[in-house]
Amino acid sequence: MGKEHMSSQFDAELSEIRLRLLEMGGKVELMIADSVQSLVERDSALAERTIALDAEINRMEVEIDQKCLHLLALRQPTARDLRFVTLALKIVTDLERIGDQCTSISKQALQLNREPQLKPYIDLPRMADAAINAVKEALDAFVRADVATAVRICNDDKVVDELNEQLQRELLTFMMEDSSTIERAMRITSISKFLERIADHATNIAEMVIFMVEGRDVRHSYAGAVE
Amino acid sequence: MGKEHMSSQFDAELSEIRLRLLEMGGKVELMIADSVQSLVERDSALAERTIALDAEINRMEVEIDQKCLHLLALRQPTARDLRFVTLALKIVTDLERIGDQCTSISKQALQLNREPQLKPYIDLPRMADAAINAVKEALDAFVRADVATAVRICNDDKVVDELNEQLQRELLTFMMEDSSTIERAMRITSISKFLERIADHATNIAEMVIFMVEGRDVRHSYAGAVE
Repeated sequence: MGKEHMSSQFDAELSEIRLRLLEMGGKVELMIADSVQSLVERDSALAERTIALDAEINRMEVEIDQKCLHLLALRQPTARDLRFVTLALKIVTDLERIGDQCTSISKQALQLNREPQLKPYIDLPRMADAAINAVKEALDAFVRADVATAVRICNDDKVVDELNEQLQRELLTFMMEDSSTIERAMRITSISKFLERIADHATNIAEMVIFMVEGRDVRHSYAGAVE
Repeated sequence: MGKEHMSSQFDAELSEIRLRLLEMGGKVELMIADSVQSLVERDSALAERTIALDAEINRMEVEIDQKCLHLLALRQPTARDLRFVTLALKIVTDLERIGDQCTSISKQALQLNREPQLKPYIDLPRMADAAINAVKEALDAFVRADVATAVRICNDDKVVDELNEQLQRELLTFMMEDSSTIERAMRITSISKFLERIADHATNIAEMVIFMVEGRDVRHSYAGAVE
């Protein structure tokens, strides 16, 4: 087998990993949107479907991991390709955990949908949009090795954090004023924190992209700006 | 360079990764213990020291990642060794995130230590002990490729989940009865959830160990028993 042929097979395998990861990302973004929509529209059937989708995400994690291991074992990539594959291994774990968090949001939605609505859900859809956008852009930054986008995601993380804090304060006021709201407010608090964690995963991915492209230890040097 | 010499260098590098990972695990276990102790003993200086330790954990993450990449690039491991190194890459991320969660616990402790104590902290130290034990055993299972221990950790995860749920219910009662307790109860709730997440990281590591040793897709087939 000629070297050129080897190399084109290698490129095909790298492309396949890239595509499957974007596909997994797309499904995860849908889970984020649907988990919050199932609450906003009180659509418990949608919450159930979102929970069911998590099994698919778990399968994709195992499958992409296998592809990465296969490529590492047989193609022995070096330098930037090696960093790409090892980063794919880490990103797939972040995506799988986001799937878990969407499942948790959906379970809270199922409970909340059984009770009268405490307040209009304005901030949660905004947080969900920001989180979806961050995940999408982090994956784009990964496949395009785009450091500028990755740095921007790290800095934008504050937006979701602030929305979360604002919502926590508002819910605290509800709870203080009327103890009958406490259980529902706690569930909404919990959803808000899950969305914040999802955005954190996107930030983690972005930090690792900077590391992959620049090949040096910048990951935690952004901490001041990020946190 | 003879093959034997290559092989002994390779083994030395694998050992070094194993040792550094255990060392990082030890520091993380200490952070879990100290973050909760800083609350129980109202020792805010300890909370500050715990937060400061996170920078060290972050440095270790970058360093172990580099060692793994170096080994993958120059030694091109296969089969079980390859799975060991790629799993080390994933585990190091879990440990780093546990460090973040201990930092969050310590920040909540700093706030709580400024106010009168709401209740004796009985459950949190028990959860912390269980979480520390799970992290420790998961890392032991990893370095010894010990599937039996890994399976046990997956099944024991329920214990921390149950302690968390029990504490959440108790805190809910406090909040319902006296709205002046809400802010403090929310902070304790938050610490309890961080400890649950730390135990989840240990479970994730254990699941990956099963995958590493058995080399097949068992990771999510334990889901029924684990969740």
